[in-house]
This record gives sequence, structure tokens and C-alpha cells, in this order.
Amino acid sequence: MKELKSLERLIDSLAKLPSVGRKSAERMAYALLDMPEEDIKEFSDSLLGIKIHIKKCPVCGIYTEDDICEICKDSSRDDESLLVVSSTKDVVAFEKMGKYHGKHHVLGGVLSATQGVSVDNLNIDSLIKRTERANTKEVILATNPTIEGETTALYIAKLLEDKNIVVSRLAYGLPMGGHLDYADSLTLNRALEGRRKV
Amino acid sequence: MKELKSLERLIDSLAKLPSVGRKSAERMAYALLDMPEEDIKEFSDSLLGIKIHIKKCPVCGIYTEDDICEICKDSSRDDESLLVVSSTKDVVAFEKMGKYHGKHHVLGGVLSATQGVSVDNLNIDSLIKRTERANTKEVILATNPTIEGETTALYIAKLLEDKNIVVSRLAYGLPMGGHLDYADSLTLNRALEGRRKV
Repeated sequence: MKELKSLERLIDSLAKLPSVGRKSAERMAYALLDMPEEDIKEFSDSLLGIKIHIKKCPVCGIYTEDDICEICKDSSRDDESLLVVSSTKDVVAFEKMGKYHGKHHVLGGVLSATQGVSVDNLNIDSLIKRTERANTKEVILATNPTIEGETTALYIAKLLEDKNIVVSRLAYGLPMGGHLDYADSLTLNRALEGRRKV
Repeated sequence: MKELKSLERLIDSLAKLPSVGRKSAERMAYALLDMPEEDIKEFSDSLLGIKIHIKKCPVCGIYTEDDICEICKDSSRDDESLLVVSSTKDVVAFEKMGKYHGKHHVLGGVLSATQGVSVDNLNIDSLIKRTERANTKEVILATNPTIEGETTALYIAKLLEDKNIVVSRLAYGLPMGGHLDYADSLTLNRALEGRRKV
């Protein structure tokens, strides 16, 4: 059976989404074919919309629809602490938690040799300049606990070494509500190493 | 943190895709934000493209980019047998298998009270007319082995009862390569009932 060229083209785009394989992309494409035309139009418009309306905050790198993001504009927030994350969605997670009242800095990724992400591709330079300009007392490195996240955190820690700034890293250990027997040995090891007196 | 309206709009669209929940839709939306503008443009265009270029074949209901689909046009295919499926992707599965050389008929869904799909929403009328017009000897009901698929198959079987046409249904049983202990009891029961002499 001849393949439908317009459908293949859509499948190619869908397969670029995270954790969407070829097979899921095909299922999605057929589902889209069955949707009413106005839903497709809306989907298409909303895709273009994000590139038109959403920019990166020039100060911290958070995605925002304003010129400067609301967190950078908010003078009630603690200027002395900078939480460094790889992406805006990590900021959203911390803001949902609601216990952190300092500022953020979004790197826009992590160092990765395999994916060709180098220091120049990340907002590391602007982070260093920001710590020099502002009244920064502490930089909290909150990249993911993956090899790339660790490497990136270590790299930034090195750059800030002589700057009279406290550089910290999120704690490793057991996730709350988790079960010991489901924890991998690396996590278990970190939880043991990081044990605290009660 | 204020939500990004353009992003929420995109998340709403993504969450309409099959097996994409709110959380996955959010992850996808952030991934799209990180993609180059030309990828987004291409995605958006390819969405519109399917509605512009793909139509349903007026004879059998298969999605096609031609006026009449290639299977209906193909005079080398056996006209006496009609395989009735719920959607074009089922046709694709049968064509990949490559052992069926008759014609197809796509219902465009299955009867479902919960989703408000009634007889009028499906290409059932056109199926009956087609069997009357054409030289149909056998109708093979190949809807999914779900409650809705079964109901639809039974409904069509009833309509074709007095028409001197062999009406058959796909065999039920163990999937090839499967393991007995993983099979649900309904499947196991059907496999036992449908046992054949070797």
C-alpha cells in the first residue's frame, strides 16, 4: 500500500517529541486524521504561537511571555541566592513546591558530548557575569542527578571556586514515599553516605 | 509562577493525542519550545497538510491522497471478498501482512454508546450498498476484539443475514509468540473453544 506522503511528513514531526517512537507517532497521526478540522487548525496555530509569544528572559533564561520574567521583576524575592537548573520546567517544579524564595538561573540544557552540547550552548557565561554583578551569596546547583547533570554542576562549581560564593548541590538520597527495596544501589549508597544524626 | 498562555494552549492540543496525559503533554510542549523554529514551522505545516491532501476514498473509506484509493483502483484484486475494519491503520496492518488480496471497507470507527458513535456515523450503509452492487461473496468482519468491535461486527452480520453472502469473523486465540501464563482468561477460553485438530 502506497504511503500517504502528507501523513509521513506529520509522523516525522511527531516522532521528534520526547518518548514518542515511530509506532506511537503513527497512532497519533491517524488520530489527528480523525479529528475535526478546527482541532487541527488550533493545534497548528498553537505551535506557531509558542515561537511568537514565548521568549527567554534575558536575565535568567526562563521562558516568559513578558520582556523580563516575573521572578526577575519581583523585588520581594531574595537576591542573594541563585538556583541553577537546566530548564524552565525545573523552575516550575520548584515554584510549585513554594519553599524557595530566591532567584533562578536556567542553563537551557546540560553539557553533553553525545548530544554535542558544549559550554557555549548553555547560559553559563551569563550565570558567572550575573554572580559578579549581583549580590550573590549562594549558588545552588540543581541540575538533574544524571551523568550530564553532575558534569555540568561540577564544571560550574569549578568556575565559581575563587569567587567567595557558597556553592551547594541538591541532596541525594531516597525519594520520599519510596521503598528501600526499589531503590537502585547508587541511590542507596548516596543515602547512606549522606546520613544525618536524628 | 504565572502560566504561559501560549504554552497552555499547546498543551491542551497535545493532550488530545492518544495516550498523552497532561504531564506528557507538558513535557512535549517544553521540548517543542527548545526546538528550532523551522522544526515547529514544519510540524505546524504538516498538521495542516493532512487535512488539505488526505481524503476518504468514496468507495471504501480508506484515507487516500488520490480521488479513489489505489486498492479500489487495482483491478487485479479479488472483488468477491470484503474485509471490514474500523480504521485505515488496520488496512495498513493487513497490507503489511500481504496475504489478503481482496478489497477493504473502512467503517471509520465502531459503534459506541459512551462515545456517542451510532450507525449513522459509520460507513455501514455504504458497505451494505456495496455488497449489493458488487459481486461480493464474503464479508470478513475484522473489527477489534473489544466490546465495541464485537457489537459492531454482530450488528453488520445481522444486516447481511439474508443476503446470500458468507459472513465471517477473524479467529480468536493466543497471539503468536505469546506465553500461556500471560494470556487473560477470556483469550484462553476462546483459544480452547476454537481448538482445531492437528
